[in-house]
Amino acid sequence: MAQENTRTNSPQIIVLGPPSVFWEYGHKFAEKFRLLKPWESALPLEEFLSAHAQTVEAMLCAASVSLSASLLTHLPSLRLVVTSSAGVNNIDLLECRRLGIAVANAPDIFSADVADLAVGLLIDVLRRISASDRFVKSRAWPIKPHYPLASKVGGKRVGIVGLGSIGQQVAKRLEAFGCPISYYSRKEKPWTSYCFYADVHQLATASDILVICCALTQETHHLINKEVLLALGKEGVIVNIARGGVIDEKELVQCLLQGEIAGAGLDVFEHEPHVPKELLGLDCVVLSPHYAVFTHESFKQVYELIVGNLEAFFSNQPLLSPLLHE
Amino acid sequence: MAQENTRTNSPQIIVLGPPSVFWEYGHKFAEKFRLLKPWESALPLEEFLSAHAQTVEAMLCAASVSLSASLLTHLPSLRLVVTSSAGVNNIDLLECRRLGIAVANAPDIFSADVADLAVGLLIDVLRRISASDRFVKSRAWPIKPHYPLASKVGGKRVGIVGLGSIGQQVAKRLEAFGCPISYYSRKEKPWTSYCFYADVHQLATASDILVICCALTQETHHLINKEVLLALGKEGVIVNIARGGVIDEKELVQCLLQGEIAGAGLDVFEHEPHVPKELLGLDCVVLSPHYAVFTHESFKQVYELIVGNLEAFFSNQPLLSPLLHE
Repeated sequence: MAQENTRTNSPQIIVLGPPSVFWEYGHKFAEKFRLLKPWESALPLEEFLSAHAQTVEAMLCAASVSLSASLLTHLPSLRLVVTSSAGVNNIDLLECRRLGIAVANAPDIFSADVADLAVGLLIDVLRRISASDRFVKSRAWPIKPHYPLASKVGGKRVGIVGLGSIGQQVAKRLEAFGCPISYYSRKEKPWTSYCFYADVHQLATASDILVICCALTQETHHLINKEVLLALGKEGVIVNIARGGVIDEKELVQCLLQGEIAGAGLDVFEHEPHVPKELLGLDCVVLSPHYAVFTHESFKQVYELIVGNLEAFFSNQPLLSPLLHE
Repeated sequence: MAQENTRTNSPQIIVLGPPSVFWEYGHKFAEKFRLLKPWESALPLEEFLSAHAQTVEAMLCAASVSLSASLLTHLPSLRLVVTSSAGVNNIDLLECRRLGIAVANAPDIFSADVADLAVGLLIDVLRRISASDRFVKSRAWPIKPHYPLASKVGGKRVGIVGLGSIGQQVAKRLEAFGCPISYYSRKEKPWTSYCFYADVHQLATASDILVICCALTQETHHLINKEVLLALGKEGVIVNIARGGVIDEKELVQCLLQGEIAGAGLDVFEHEPHVPKELLGLDCVVLSPHYAVFTHESFKQVYELIVGNLEAFFSNQPLLSPLLHE
């Protein structure tokens, strides 16, 4: 009974998605807040909101949910949106500002994890780690002692597409392996001595490896097209931990199949969770299920940040990571 | 005919092994030297040497061949041994010195490659890269969207066993990921501020990860025993790119099966190429076929160093990488 009282008195939030942090922390959120969970209802989302969410003041929103102006009309009491991601391109920020809804995100918590996976995928492709794990686990070693040679990491010219928080952390790690770093971005960054290219085709021509670290926008959609891949060349390797749509995936598949580039490490795809079937049998390609941010440590940190933002809101304290103020 | 003359006039060397650099460069060696290849003969090695190698002055020797005093008695004209590895524990150096035989090795060429693989295996185990590659390639992603969470690299306390050239390069790379570094070695290294442990059990207690980088000697055989593995603990990960015999492999297998440690990245094994079959089905274990040095770039560098040493010897110039002088 004490617990029920606590729960009745605890503040209510609506959860859209739910975000993946709920996999591990759903029960902990439920201990602190009364949760409205539209995905457990048979009602369509807008009907659910009209029926149950007219007084709710705070929302936790997954990056996969589009929080549009029309959806916001069904939440007349909303004053706060908290997201579990750094990116907020799923949220109509102008409409939030107009309506006086504050927005808090999770900036930079995941950058190190994403950079770690980018470097891990790159080493894996160059040094054939997943392929060799498959080789040994299939008991082939005693039969075929001459395993194919791999590629050295050191000295490879790395071109980073998008030198934001993730790109910078990729660069820092790969410098320690002896890789010279160049980058492409909209504007030259005055604070770094890395070589800047204003043209991604030129960056590819001057690089052995491209690591895609930019946001997906109208400008970056299919930025990595056939011409860029051909400029990277037959020894070239591409790593994508950004968004699938930054690369023209059909052309990437063709370049890999025809040996126009040497390999790829891909965490993201154009039509997730569907992966081009031509890639599934290639040793020169290492694939992961869009899970660059999925570590216990980062999930814990994000959980704590979300709870901190919500508790601050309900106790009229400043938000911990405000993107938009009320 | 011109080519045959060249070959008849070119200096003769005997090749034992052959070393793996022959996989790619055997034909190039044959263009520069007349090669005696005991492995292509039906004769036992000592008989082959007595029959064909009485006048040969130079040898290229694989690390896998034990060059003993008794074998040397069959090579009365030998004045130079060139190896393709950094380690020379397969060579009776005292006897070489007594006989006035010079020895040249390949120091440090491979250190960066070995360190790269150590870090690659570590990221792979923590971030489940090979397991996720298997997951995606088996088409499981659309069916099971909730992939298990991985472990963050940054912040993990790394203990390096043996802070030689390889260990130092592992440390440098992992510092860039935000890992605090400690080490165990026979003596404290005055030139580093990494935390020193004179006891490997204490190092394991203070570490989340152990990276084995030491030579295999009588002192280091089974240095990593059950007690050390239990001290590393249930969240602990071990990486071995040194020699299989440094770890008590039976105990390692038991600890992995019983969850006494969390995972392992292994390039070397006690009875290569045989790998304990209990490891072949584990997602938490990443295996490679003792190929930490097998990159195109290092093989080329080693080929050039070996040729440089041999050409220096035959033209009475100083050796490029002398370990023992005549």
